[in-house]
Amino acid sequence: MHSALTPRPLPTVLLVSLVPVAGWFVLRPLLDPVPPLPGLYTSVGLSIYAFLAALYMIPALGPTFIKANLKGRDLLKTYSDPIPESQGLVCASIYIILLIIFIPFPFARTVASLSHAEANGDSSRGSEPLHHQLAVYLSSLLSLMMATMLGFLDDVFDIRWRHKLPIPLIASIPLLMVYFAESGNTHVVVPLPLRGLFGVLLNLGPLYYLYMSLLSTFTTNSINILAGINGSEVSQALIIAISVIINDLLYLPWPVDFRIPLHLLGNKAEVDIGGEWHAGMAYGSQELVSRHVFSLYFMLPLVGVCLGFMYHNWYPARAFPGDTFCYVAGMAFSVVGIQAHFSKTLLLFFLPQIFNFVLSCPQLFGLVPNPRHRVPRFDADTNKLYPSKTMFLRPPSRLTTLVLRILSVLRLTELTINSTTGVIHECTNLTILNFFLVNLGPLHEKRLVQVLMCTQVAGSVLAFVVRYGLAGLVYDGDRR
Amino acid sequence: MHSALTPRPLPTVLLVSLVPVAGWFVLRPLLDPVPPLPGLYTSVGLSIYAFLAALYMIPALGPTFIKANLKGRDLLKTYSDPIPESQGLVCASIYIILLIIFIPFPFARTVASLSHAEANGDSSRGSEPLHHQLAVYLSSLLSLMMATMLGFLDDVFDIRWRHKLPIPLIASIPLLMVYFAESGNTHVVVPLPLRGLFGVLLNLGPLYYLYMSLLSTFTTNSINILAGINGSEVSQALIIAISVIINDLLYLPWPVDFRIPLHLLGNKAEVDIGGEWHAGMAYGSQELVSRHVFSLYFMLPLVGVCLGFMYHNWYPARAFPGDTFCYVAGMAFSVVGIQAHFSKTLLLFFLPQIFNFVLSCPQLFGLVPNPRHRVPRFDADTNKLYPSKTMFLRPPSRLTTLVLRILSVLRLTELTINSTTGVIHECTNLTILNFFLVNLGPLHEKRLVQVLMCTQVAGSVLAFVVRYGLAGLVYDGDRR
Repeated sequence: MHSALTPRPLPTVLLVSLVPVAGWFVLRPLLDPVPPLPGLYTSVGLSIYAFLAALYMIPALGPTFIKANLKGRDLLKTYSDPIPESQGLVCASIYIILLIIFIPFPFARTVASLSHAEANGDSSRGSEPLHHQLAVYLSSLLSLMMATMLGFLDDVFDIRWRHKLPIPLIASIPLLMVYFAESGNTHVVVPLPLRGLFGVLLNLGPLYYLYMSLLSTFTTNSINILAGINGSEVSQALIIAISVIINDLLYLPWPVDFRIPLHLLGNKAEVDIGGEWHAGMAYGSQELVSRHVFSLYFMLPLVGVCLGFMYHNWYPARAFPGDTFCYVAGMAFSVVGIQAHFSKTLLLFFLPQIFNFVLSCPQLFGLVPNPRHRVPRFDADTNKLYPSKTMFLRPPSRLTTLVLRILSVLRLTELTINSTTGVIHECTNLTILNFFLVNLGPLHEKRLVQVLMCTQVAGSVLAFVVRYGLAGLVYDGDRR
Repeated sequence: MHSALTPRPLPTVLLVSLVPVAGWFVLRPLLDPVPPLPGLYTSVGLSIYAFLAALYMIPALGPTFIKANLKGRDLLKTYSDPIPESQGLVCASIYIILLIIFIPFPFARTVASLSHAEANGDSSRGSEPLHHQLAVYLSSLLSLMMATMLGFLDDVFDIRWRHKLPIPLIASIPLLMVYFAESGNTHVVVPLPLRGLFGVLLNLGPLYYLYMSLLSTFTTNSINILAGINGSEVSQALIIAISVIINDLLYLPWPVDFRIPLHLLGNKAEVDIGGEWHAGMAYGSQELVSRHVFSLYFMLPLVGVCLGFMYHNWYPARAFPGDTFCYVAGMAFSVVGIQAHFSKTLLLFFLPQIFNFVLSCPQLFGLVPNPRHRVPRFDADTNKLYPSKTMFLRPPSRLTTLVLRILSVLRLTELTINSTTGVIHECTNLTILNFFLVNLGPLHEKRLVQVLMCTQVAGSVLAFVVRYGLAGLVYDGDRR
């Protein structure tokens, strides 16, 4: 085995010391005085366990995966030792099992009624909202399970990418069915300029279901096609999850008052802070708080497993995520976007993925030849990555030539042109990774993934500016 | 390819004519006048689709399974062509997806309230029972999904049997968590002779959860170890499912009066028939009716996929079920036994499995050597199956000798004894299949599975006699 492939050492003492810390968080809601939002403490505790479990189980199960023929060679390395593939399955299993074990903490009538009564001074509320939330939570789990299952089937049966596209549609069926059974909201708030036409609220009806299923198709596949270098999939998922968490935290009833300087972002909406729920963007709406708490329940453990997995997937990778990881992470984002009703905000966190998807369209839809792999090309001598190219076996059509020339002017691709005939006979593959390499020059693999991560972070910062600044121009505070 | 292995022909005309019939059943609840228990019509329709889907998809996906290395050779045949293995995965996928698509029919407030109001003349009931039932339904689906996932992982990673045993425990976690969150009943009705000690109802508390998880471990593994000949797993599942359905039908509000001649079975309980819910053993208890309707929702499509799969798994088998099938079927039985509260009755339908499990114990727990396969031995010349044997490499201990001699006297095993020393050096493997062969002589494989099926049917008949006859001696009509 190549020396770079011995499992990464784990700082056991440091990690073992996390076990009691996590235990305290898990059990905190059972201790007096019950904190507000007790479920969140448990969720944080379980997320730490998720991190530890991923950290230890990924290397432990590596040989089992290799034995079951779930392995691949790293295309961008000099060595060809087999690396365990599809280990996103381990992440997904840890994630889902912890989410299942979590069920009684927010949803058991005995536990929840106790803490709700304490927090609200109101023990008379019926258990119906709890039943409803439990059904929604369980349908989300079902969709995650289906995404795991289908992702793993994809890894085992190696489904062709055209057949893959609808897979997330199937996985989102439980979500949609329960959304329908529970008479979920299908209204959208109309942007200010269009209110003359449609009114304040527009009922999309069946179109809303179409929108939801397309959302899960997008979040899932967009991570899956921005892949190929060590750490790319997991770092995207990690940064998006953290962005969602930051957005959720804005809506929690913090005990201290705080104020986002919205006026700096051009938003003129009044910021009214205080009341029973103290600070936070929820402005006292218990429904908004509970939606974002729901989102946190799914995002916190996702961050846990991502961090644990990233340790082994980081350059040079000891483990590959496989499609399973992308499907589960993508579905988790869809779940929170749909169930907590912030799908537009969620999409803002996918700016690099949207860019990559739009850029890929000429290849996905057949204008430009689409080779099996579009990952950058590895040069063993310089140990750097170069843009990979796709070759035109026949001269490109006029439409293709036009599209490619525009992309080339925008520095989105690099063309190789026959100097005598002027016909394009090669272009770099249309991915964000090749785009980086075209503009920044050849990069080391680790540096390239760092560039990708910085872009993702910058995208999230931009997303917050748009969401809490510019959105004020087309939406008022009305959120449903 | 061996001629016996070309896919079985399908009578397409006959089958296509089933499509509109199934369609009528699915859509019947949406037509006026709404029938009582409208969900059952849809369930019957979807079960027909389940049958058709299994019938067509099993052979269609066979080559894909073989290509993904999910294949095995049939140990009891002369040919060694690869047969697709783990095709229970196809059954499980059809089963679960149809159960998910089914969700809106009984649980959507719009659909259900309409039909409930019609059926009961009572539109004022809140939606809380519906929410509660939906949560229970979803948790059952989650457990089925986990059983599928774990069964398939078992097939891919080929987990050793000792490590397999606890797998159903994991799959039952969603069931238990939601049972707890929904404050499920943990009381059992005490048999009449013990009521002086414990009272009428005994709260088992945590022990009840232990009981439920052991139940799923048993139903799952007991089917998995009664395996090895063509059609054995699926025929067991089919007959148990049909038995459960017959038992459920007894509790439905039939429009005609009928009376089970309980006095013939020695039961002296009064049979009071009539009222709003007409005939049926539920005696007007709407809760009992809804429990058994819930059970039918899970059992009807299971019968559908079993029938479809059995067509291809019948001797000589064109497809193998794999662990996936046993796990899903076993978990489905646990789900209905637990959620519809008839686990004792359910266990009565497992009499051959209980017999096989008890008989296997000396091998499972190490008294007698346990070879990798315990299936009967195939003799190519006579084309019949003979009891397979396990050999003692060392002389058996005194305990083992005692146990084996008792089993031998009861004709449960056949011993080969060294004529000079009197030491046992071989015995037939301790399974119900070898037990049949020891007592009935060598049998053709098809005949052996028919014997097994007859035994299963006889077991179910006995179960009904015990449940509705003898049980009257130790239980009164009190069911909770």
